[in-house]
Amino acid sequence: MANQDIVIIGGGPAGIEAAKGIADLGYKAILVEKRDRLGGNPDEQQYAALTPDLRDTEEALEEMIAPLRDNPNIEVKYNTLVTGAEGALGDFTLKAVSMGKEIDIKAGAVIISTGFQHFDPGRETQKYGYYEHDDVLTLTDAEKMLKAHNFVRPSNGEKPKRICFIQCVGSRDRQIGNEYCSKVCCGISSKQAIEVRQQVPDCKVYIFYIDMRMYGYWENEIYWPAQEQHKVNYIKGMATEIVKKGDKLLVKGEDTTLRRPMEVEMDMVILAVGMEPSEGTKQMASIFGIKQNKYNFLETTGGPLDTVSTNVPGVFAAGACTGPADLEDSVSAGGLAAMKAIASVRKAEMATA
Amino acid sequence: MANQDIVIIGGGPAGIEAAKGIADLGYKAILVEKRDRLGGNPDEQQYAALTPDLRDTEEALEEMIAPLRDNPNIEVKYNTLVTGAEGALGDFTLKAVSMGKEIDIKAGAVIISTGFQHFDPGRETQKYGYYEHDDVLTLTDAEKMLKAHNFVRPSNGEKPKRICFIQCVGSRDRQIGNEYCSKVCCGISSKQAIEVRQQVPDCKVYIFYIDMRMYGYWENEIYWPAQEQHKVNYIKGMATEIVKKGDKLLVKGEDTTLRRPMEVEMDMVILAVGMEPSEGTKQMASIFGIKQNKYNFLETTGGPLDTVSTNVPGVFAAGACTGPADLEDSVSAGGLAAMKAIASVRKAEMATA
Repeated sequence: MANQDIVIIGGGPAGIEAAKGIADLGYKAILVEKRDRLGGNPDEQQYAALTPDLRDTEEALEEMIAPLRDNPNIEVKYNTLVTGAEGALGDFTLKAVSMGKEIDIKAGAVIISTGFQHFDPGRETQKYGYYEHDDVLTLTDAEKMLKAHNFVRPSNGEKPKRICFIQCVGSRDRQIGNEYCSKVCCGISSKQAIEVRQQVPDCKVYIFYIDMRMYGYWENEIYWPAQEQHKVNYIKGMATEIVKKGDKLLVKGEDTTLRRPMEVEMDMVILAVGMEPSEGTKQMASIFGIKQNKYNFLETTGGPLDTVSTNVPGVFAAGACTGPADLEDSVSAGGLAAMKAIASVRKAEMATA
Repeated sequence: MANQDIVIIGGGPAGIEAAKGIADLGYKAILVEKRDRLGGNPDEQQYAALTPDLRDTEEALEEMIAPLRDNPNIEVKYNTLVTGAEGALGDFTLKAVSMGKEIDIKAGAVIISTGFQHFDPGRETQKYGYYEHDDVLTLTDAEKMLKAHNFVRPSNGEKPKRICFIQCVGSRDRQIGNEYCSKVCCGISSKQAIEVRQQVPDCKVYIFYIDMRMYGYWENEIYWPAQEQHKVNYIKGMATEIVKKGDKLLVKGEDTTLRRPMEVEMDMVILAVGMEPSEGTKQMASIFGIKQNKYNFLETTGGPLDTVSTNVPGVFAAGACTGPADLEDSVSAGGLAAMKAIASVRKAEMATA
């Protein structure tokens, strides 16, 4: 008899959606989370508001997580790390360390939703001086300050008068090896630019970009309001270096539209860091033998026709562990993965019946 | 007792994926299609190859559709148009015209996957002379010629020496009222540009664009190969007018990077037409009382947290009927809609039990 339970590894948006779907369909979902809270990056990194509707992140996550509480079909294992796996579709045994103890988790199918991590701008793009200059931040640093309504220069605690965002840090970058576009950074930068203009109305905000990728409705929901209502300045150009000049930052680069070198003084610079596979994603690939693409994200089979199946029968992947994904992508893929995981244990059951 | 069957309206990629998922979970799917074939726009418009992997469309669609054949859980109603609906979650009765006869279709829940239609470039953008000049085509016209391996100038049957694509025709355009970005046209134009270079190696190919939105992996799968291996020329600039000059087309506009007006002669011009809600999508909104957004796409509730639920309990929407969507979006949303539709009829059943 095939085990009909489904284990989901990673409690971010994709994993939450998958667990909810499995439970709604009358199957048992075991959601394994390494932290003591659900919510994934949006929670861990303390996102202030979500794209594209600028909705409060805590409130939105609470709405997602609420149906999991006291749900007889859902067991959440917090502080639990999967360390090994045996078996196959219909009969997996996962080894895990839970609250310091070694445990076994049995399931018929597995959904991996271990997500992404933000690119570390100190790793190879020394040119931006992230670890050298206090006033050079990442999107996640800025998000935390915006959430706390305390958007100030870390160097002196004063409100900034001029800031800029630099797009594509760790994305679309061959030298670093991340040739892909991380999909959401244009939208998140524009969202933060609006929030800065709301919280610090005197602050001028610039965004240096290669292409603004505000696809779908984001165009009208974020991009135009940022420019028209909130007077954010978009400049097509690359910043190549940041140096200290007095108590300011001098951003050097090229304005592509004006076709001339540019040097602008800023109080703060925010690096729009892209997505990379999380450590958990790489570990799960190794534990389950899942093929990875050249960037170490999990590879799904079937190109655009199948966004969640992996090369291992009974093991599915959903959300940003498969590549750059926005919230909508993660939620939709979480649902599809839930469906396919249930379908797989049903087939396994029929084969053994 | 609640009806547990689920009717899916529209047999494109989202509808096919939803039907397959419902059947795999042991529920009955009734797939209603107005044409005599499945496959939606990719089939009807004779797409040659799919983004991003340039896989043959017929082959890919066959792979999607095959599991639906002789499936005891799936009934496909071809040549069938839904004309009315009564009832509510757990007990819908749809009125339809099937093969010329009026029929009733009973179901517990409904998934709408009636998709998009391509923007008609003759409607309001007269400046491009689509209906005036034989050699001005749309992406779908070009796709058909590429599929037939007969990429020639319609005016004289000769192979072109110089062609260009004009991006954002009917998208990101306030005058027309379509402020959204259609998401896939950058990728499809670049894919076609590669195919033209392969089929007509002497032909120079230009793409006039505002921003190249090759998000995620498309950057490395299409955008860089187009430029480096296939020598496609990308020019940031807007084309504002096309006039006839001898047997050529004179494209007038502005090169944003060089900051000067441009006038270039072309043998053929391909308009990258965007997505609009299909007639079927607008009809279903009216029949089921589904909220539409300002562009008449179906509105899903819950912003990014729910990509498929509508304001009508038991009625879900998946794919491009909700807004611009690529194939991955449609497949993922089809799966999520299947899951939520089943969950809804299960809940209705429990409520009546």
